[in-house]
Amino acid sequence: MKIVVDAMGGDRGPEVVVEGVVDAAKEIEGEVILVGKKSIIQKHLTRFNFPKIKVIDAPETIDMNDDPMQAVRRKKNSSLVKAMLLLKEGEVDALVSAGNTGAVVTAASIYLKRIQGVHRPTLAVPIPTPLGYSLLLDVGACVDTRAEELYQFAVMGSLYAQKLMGIENPKVALLNIGEEKMKGNKVVREAYTLLENSSLNFIGNVEGRDLFLGKADVVVCDGFVGNIVLKSSESIAESLSQYLKEKIEKSKNQQVKQFLEKVLKDFFKRSDYSNYGGALLLGVKGYCVVTHGASPPEGIKNSILVASREVASGINEEIEKFFSH
Amino acid sequence: MKIVVDAMGGDRGPEVVVEGVVDAAKEIEGEVILVGKKSIIQKHLTRFNFPKIKVIDAPETIDMNDDPMQAVRRKKNSSLVKAMLLLKEGEVDALVSAGNTGAVVTAASIYLKRIQGVHRPTLAVPIPTPLGYSLLLDVGACVDTRAEELYQFAVMGSLYAQKLMGIENPKVALLNIGEEKMKGNKVVREAYTLLENSSLNFIGNVEGRDLFLGKADVVVCDGFVGNIVLKSSESIAESLSQYLKEKIEKSKNQQVKQFLEKVLKDFFKRSDYSNYGGALLLGVKGYCVVTHGASPPEGIKNSILVASREVASGINEEIEKFFSH
Repeated sequence: MKIVVDAMGGDRGPEVVVEGVVDAAKEIEGEVILVGKKSIIQKHLTRFNFPKIKVIDAPETIDMNDDPMQAVRRKKNSSLVKAMLLLKEGEVDALVSAGNTGAVVTAASIYLKRIQGVHRPTLAVPIPTPLGYSLLLDVGACVDTRAEELYQFAVMGSLYAQKLMGIENPKVALLNIGEEKMKGNKVVREAYTLLENSSLNFIGNVEGRDLFLGKADVVVCDGFVGNIVLKSSESIAESLSQYLKEKIEKSKNQQVKQFLEKVLKDFFKRSDYSNYGGALLLGVKGYCVVTHGASPPEGIKNSILVASREVASGINEEIEKFFSH
Repeated sequence: MKIVVDAMGGDRGPEVVVEGVVDAAKEIEGEVILVGKKSIIQKHLTRFNFPKIKVIDAPETIDMNDDPMQAVRRKKNSSLVKAMLLLKEGEVDALVSAGNTGAVVTAASIYLKRIQGVHRPTLAVPIPTPLGYSLLLDVGACVDTRAEELYQFAVMGSLYAQKLMGIENPKVALLNIGEEKMKGNKVVREAYTLLENSSLNFIGNVEGRDLFLGKADVVVCDGFVGNIVLKSSESIAESLSQYLKEKIEKSKNQQVKQFLEKVLKDFFKRSDYSNYGGALLLGVKGYCVVTHGASPPEGIKNSILVASREVASGINEEIEKFFSH
């Protein structure tokens, strides 16, 4: 198995990506390849006594501020486009990037193409719940989603939960503003009917307040809603963490400090991106995982491990099989 | 000034509402009237040595599980409908309810009617930021909102921020999935153009991660998005608070306990519903404040104070004036 990693995308620079790649390469069976500015990557690689990593030079980079469509079309020599081409050509089995999410989605749509029968690709993110994780999708690949597309997201999410989260008959729900069937906007009400009549284990609507409680294994929504919910939730968790950290700093009591530091660490361990390894792009012909831009090396490593599990699971063949009927 | 309070709606029963009403009645100039099951309310009132509160009997109640439209149409003798009729007939100046938000919006739409020129009424909620509050609207009164309606929400929110939050030239933003003008769904992109060409102090888009940072004074979105963001955010804050409280309980160190209890209390004081007194219904001919169903007496009291400030501010005349041009 070969996994290509876009070394240039992350907010924290290639140094962090390289460290995560080295850690992953020690664990997975197969090869990890880095694409990016070769001299910079090589420099960071020398810090680690680990010679097995191939580096492919890419002189251009796409950053967080680039417009995805323009950047992907114009920067043919960017690390992302070069990595995507390796995936398209079958040189590698999966791609991992900590870069501009929109650019990854755009590049995948252009180069990999959609799986036959899939209307639009979708980004899914595992969100922490008291008992584990729920899969939330779409979190930003699609806006102005139609009911049929929400249904397809539900199918892909359900297959993912089965094959990769070990859930036999995943409970699927629509994110809505009320539990009753007639609640919500036009598209969600239409999607309710489609899901109710589908082969999925559809449990109805869940509300915002239930999102992090794990009532459903797969929660489906339009990408506009999913993106805003995900980002605002992260922001709240961060503010509170920041607030408590400042208080800890000020406390002169060592016992208080130690206790709080441990409690906070435990709480955020489960909600931290670095633990679940990023967002999963579903519906295209190829495995792509987008790590959070601010990921530490552990997040990069976990994304690579997630990508390798996706490849091994053959989830894309399952999606293809489902939609070919 | 007279303010009517629906005594029956809250999750915590009329006892809590009565306590909040008594506390408010001591502070405001004017009268507070309670509507609900008279014998129950009178019983709770006897706990307080405060004879000034009038009680109007209403044998029916609308609860959280009632369908708003059906309940408002059928339960003519409910505390909410009777209270709303007092407001419509000019017997009182404002209404406060801790009940079913949808029912309050529906009853207000049916009985009070919209302010001339306003397409749809909207629910606004002050959300905590590091420097104070931002006003988020709509949080659930309207779904499938059109661009013109989002523009109107922005106008009403901006007038509210001016008249009631003391902000001279409120910064208005659209909640979106990116900062650039072309980001987001069709309706939001159209609303961007309307706002850009308006007389408002429009600062562009804010993302989910900026929502609680106070970048804008007024943040506008469709009610489907606003409701889900608000409820999921509350849920996260609650989970973390719960988690920390459990850890505090288990700690045997008294200093740690005291420190943590104080820190948590301070943090949640600002984000607590009871401090800002509920959601504000804007765009109808009458002042209605909906307190969170789980509000403590302090929340009820603060909602009554908010309602009294709304009446004094004349915000509805300002809204009418704006849309009459």
